[in-house]
Amino acid sequence: MKQRLISYLPWLTWGRTYNRQLFRQDLIAAFIVTVMVIPQSLAYAMLAGLPAEAGLYASILPLVGYALFGTSSALAVGPVAVIALMSASAVGQVAEAETAGYIIASISLALLSGAILMVMGIFRLGFTSNFISHPVISGFITGSALLIALSQFKHLLGVNISGENLLELVPALLGELPRTHATTLLLGASALLFLWFTRNHMANLLVRLGMPKGVAQQLGRAGPVMAVIAATSIVAIYSLDDKGIAVVGTIPAGLPPLQLPASSLALLQELFVPAMLISLVIFVESVSVAHKLALKKRERIDANQELLGLGAANMMSAFAGGLAVAGGFSRSVISDDAGARTPAAGAFTAIGIAAVALFLTPLMYYLPNAILAATIIVAVLSMADFRAIRQNWRYSSHDGAALVATLVITLLLGVTEGIMAGVALSLALYLYRTSQPHSAIVGLVPGTEHFRNVNRHTVKTSPQVLIVRVDESLYFANSRYLEEHINALVAARKEVRHVVLMCPAVNHIDASALESLEAINTELSDMGIKLHLSEVKGPVMDRLRKSRFLSDLNGEVFLTTYQAWTRLAAAATVENR
Amino acid sequence: MKQRLISYLPWLTWGRTYNRQLFRQDLIAAFIVTVMVIPQSLAYAMLAGLPAEAGLYASILPLVGYALFGTSSALAVGPVAVIALMSASAVGQVAEAETAGYIIASISLALLSGAILMVMGIFRLGFTSNFISHPVISGFITGSALLIALSQFKHLLGVNISGENLLELVPALLGELPRTHATTLLLGASALLFLWFTRNHMANLLVRLGMPKGVAQQLGRAGPVMAVIAATSIVAIYSLDDKGIAVVGTIPAGLPPLQLPASSLALLQELFVPAMLISLVIFVESVSVAHKLALKKRERIDANQELLGLGAANMMSAFAGGLAVAGGFSRSVISDDAGARTPAAGAFTAIGIAAVALFLTPLMYYLPNAILAATIIVAVLSMADFRAIRQNWRYSSHDGAALVATLVITLLLGVTEGIMAGVALSLALYLYRTSQPHSAIVGLVPGTEHFRNVNRHTVKTSPQVLIVRVDESLYFANSRYLEEHINALVAARKEVRHVVLMCPAVNHIDASALESLEAINTELSDMGIKLHLSEVKGPVMDRLRKSRFLSDLNGEVFLTTYQAWTRLAAAATVENR
Repeated sequence: MKQRLISYLPWLTWGRTYNRQLFRQDLIAAFIVTVMVIPQSLAYAMLAGLPAEAGLYASILPLVGYALFGTSSALAVGPVAVIALMSASAVGQVAEAETAGYIIASISLALLSGAILMVMGIFRLGFTSNFISHPVISGFITGSALLIALSQFKHLLGVNISGENLLELVPALLGELPRTHATTLLLGASALLFLWFTRNHMANLLVRLGMPKGVAQQLGRAGPVMAVIAATSIVAIYSLDDKGIAVVGTIPAGLPPLQLPASSLALLQELFVPAMLISLVIFVESVSVAHKLALKKRERIDANQELLGLGAANMMSAFAGGLAVAGGFSRSVISDDAGARTPAAGAFTAIGIAAVALFLTPLMYYLPNAILAATIIVAVLSMADFRAIRQNWRYSSHDGAALVATLVITLLLGVTEGIMAGVALSLALYLYRTSQPHSAIVGLVPGTEHFRNVNRHTVKTSPQVLIVRVDESLYFANSRYLEEHINALVAARKEVRHVVLMCPAVNHIDASALESLEAINTELSDMGIKLHLSEVKGPVMDRLRKSRFLSDLNGEVFLTTYQAWTRLAAAATVENR
Repeated sequence: MKQRLISYLPWLTWGRTYNRQLFRQDLIAAFIVTVMVIPQSLAYAMLAGLPAEAGLYASILPLVGYALFGTSSALAVGPVAVIALMSASAVGQVAEAETAGYIIASISLALLSGAILMVMGIFRLGFTSNFISHPVISGFITGSALLIALSQFKHLLGVNISGENLLELVPALLGELPRTHATTLLLGASALLFLWFTRNHMANLLVRLGMPKGVAQQLGRAGPVMAVIAATSIVAIYSLDDKGIAVVGTIPAGLPPLQLPASSLALLQELFVPAMLISLVIFVESVSVAHKLALKKRERIDANQELLGLGAANMMSAFAGGLAVAGGFSRSVISDDAGARTPAAGAFTAIGIAAVALFLTPLMYYLPNAILAATIIVAVLSMADFRAIRQNWRYSSHDGAALVATLVITLLLGVTEGIMAGVALSLALYLYRTSQPHSAIVGLVPGTEHFRNVNRHTVKTSPQVLIVRVDESLYFANSRYLEEHINALVAARKEVRHVVLMCPAVNHIDASALESLEAINTELSDMGIKLHLSEVKGPVMDRLRKSRFLSDLNGEVFLTTYQAWTRLAAAATVENR
């Protein structure tokens, strides 16, 4: 019982060895992270179509929720770009933008996603994320990054458009180009340039100017904070908001209201399918970030435990009136670099952001939307990975196709459709491939007991003994293929008296394939040919023993192909080829 | 060009050698089949909710369509039980029973199914049927057989109920029990007993009485014809139709009206999804029947060509005002036993049934519905296979679960839901299994060059050289598993200096798994451990050469595991275990 409790609440373990040194390091990290993530939190709330304070609220309690259950010491949860976009897309289907109903729907989506993640964690369904392949994730992230960047251009231009995909956004943007607000564009474009420079070149420049590398890197990441402070000051001093520059405006000061969202059962039903997908993406994104960071620290991530942590974080976000959250790459790296040692750092960051929400929101009145948009654009475009397309395509057309399909469908139809199409296509391609297995006729490599493909190696063979290696588990999708393949091979070789099916690659034989093997055995018997098996694996053999097949088999089962060869080829002609 | 035409029109091949002897045999077979299949054709039209003549119309032109493109000399197409049930279920969703709209929808469904089959044939999508596993087919057939039998009880009882699944049919039947029509029940029950006896015991009895086996078997199959003739005569002589026995009634004499069904685009859209599933079932059922018959005759069935044949048959059925058709087991066996030699026999049968439709329909006026129902019940119950449940379950719980799920969902929700659930479950179980691959630590079998599982065999091992065999292709669903597995193995064995990944069962490495291998290589390098591969297959090696992996690999790739062992174990301690 106690053991079980400890496994569900990791802080019971690390809490026992928590000391002053760790506390000090976590506290410093928390201070840095607090300052750094405020622009992000506001920006992603805007991306999700929510008021700015929702971004702050989503950065307080969720951290506590994750700290209670999560296993990664470096993962920082909060609003992230892709989830904000998916949330906007899902909520846009059920509610009008900028209405109370829209906010309720966003919060309900966070609640539902949290509940789904929790349930998945309790039922230990962490393995489901394995079915989203790396190329699909890559295509999805690049596609969403482009979509997000494009959706932010309206803030840079100071125009008002809406749209969920390339086909809607591009014409809308082009149509509004003549109405561009020049001052907004100037401010936004300058911020974009500045952010791009600080992100990509400032650290190197500072190092070359003699600054220690660690500090230089921290400063390089402080670009958004600097841009926000500078732009807010300029707008405030020159009252640019009166001249048409859109600003964040009044953010109500105070702690988040703790309450259940006023969502109806009908609303929850409507949001269920998008919530499922969002949960999956939250999980996949967070775990892959956590995994990367853990590798560096030689920590282990427990996927099922992460589900509980992320579930708790999202449910807490919903109670606090925030949006769906995930473990974000940029905020995690900031936290890690700042020296966070345990999940407690997350909890301290929560306290910091709560203080900001209580006392500092008036300072953000003059923060221009264009600066937040520039922050988002630079952040998401750094996630887009175009080289991956070429690399994947070069390695395998199936992987390349899955990546490109996900990318293109995400751009053209939207994020939900993109990820679903990618997963469906990669599963379909895998099934198609296993349904058309590779197979080889093999012969003995001289001087060894090893058998290899006659077309690739110089080997010994016999016209009376046909040794066939099938390179796939035998199951319903390829059972008929096997039957036809063996028949065709034997039909083309009149001298064959023994067929040895070499099974080192056969990891499973299901009931359909067993029927095919029975049929092959019967057909070969009718032709006076014996069917033998070799190198059948233990688990496969265990299963065959439960059927009639081994007693029906007219040949033998050999432990090694070499034993089969020495026995059968003794009475046969042997050739070198 | 000519070669291509010949491959699409098989009769160009067999037509060249057609002679008088073949003609005579085909003609005799056609006569027997004509007489035998009339009760079937009427019965399945009734099952599909259509007037009796639709069954006749569906048994004329479709045979010609199949004869033009099909490859099986024994397959006889026409109305079959499962397709009739699926058709009734699909059409019941879009039209009221016994209306003109219902008939139009049935015909449109046949047209659509024919078109889908044709398109699949042209794009050579025959392989799709491989994804329906044998246990799913078995569960589907047993489930539909029970449903069909149950749906026919109303005709035996002379009551009127409707329903598509167990949950609807059973309460409806029980509620109507008090209204049972005694004479109808007497007639139906007698027919049921007689048909059951002739089907299962008459042939044996006749053989024991000294009749030649072939003739006895033919007579055994003539049960339905005899029952139909006897019952029709009794009803006609005693005017039982006036006493409440439901009869077929007037069947319009004449050939089918050749016209396109008056279906709207909206109707076709509504029917599209059921038509897809029905096409798949038509294809799977027909090909498995054709395959069974071809095995006996040592013929080859071309699945893609069959698609064209079945597509043509269904489109012809639609033009003639019939219902969707498939290659039926019982009519095919009758045709085969009657001595049909080429697909021309089907065309001659068509002429025979056309003659019946022209001249003999008045004779069927007094044919009681209860007799047709009894024919259906006996025919379908012989398809139900309950032993398959135990056999499959015993062999593998996955196969058993797929069978039972298909059977239960077919019974409880309906045929369409049943087959979809079965296919989805068997694919999901396959993916789940491959995502949790079996893996073994192996050692050298003394006196051989062969390596087997240390837990199953007495083998030589070394604490410094860890040889791991992974029994699955490496792909996205198991790539994280592999990483964690190798890490756990190495963490538990401090002396390990070399890890050899033995790959005879690795038929493919996709981009996700490649990233995991890169990660494993990096992690092992950090620990001062070398990663080697052995027995990598040709196609896998070709692909790896296109990536950076082979140059990043800190160990070697060995042709055989034995070579890896002799090299690496030379400098290591060797133990027997």
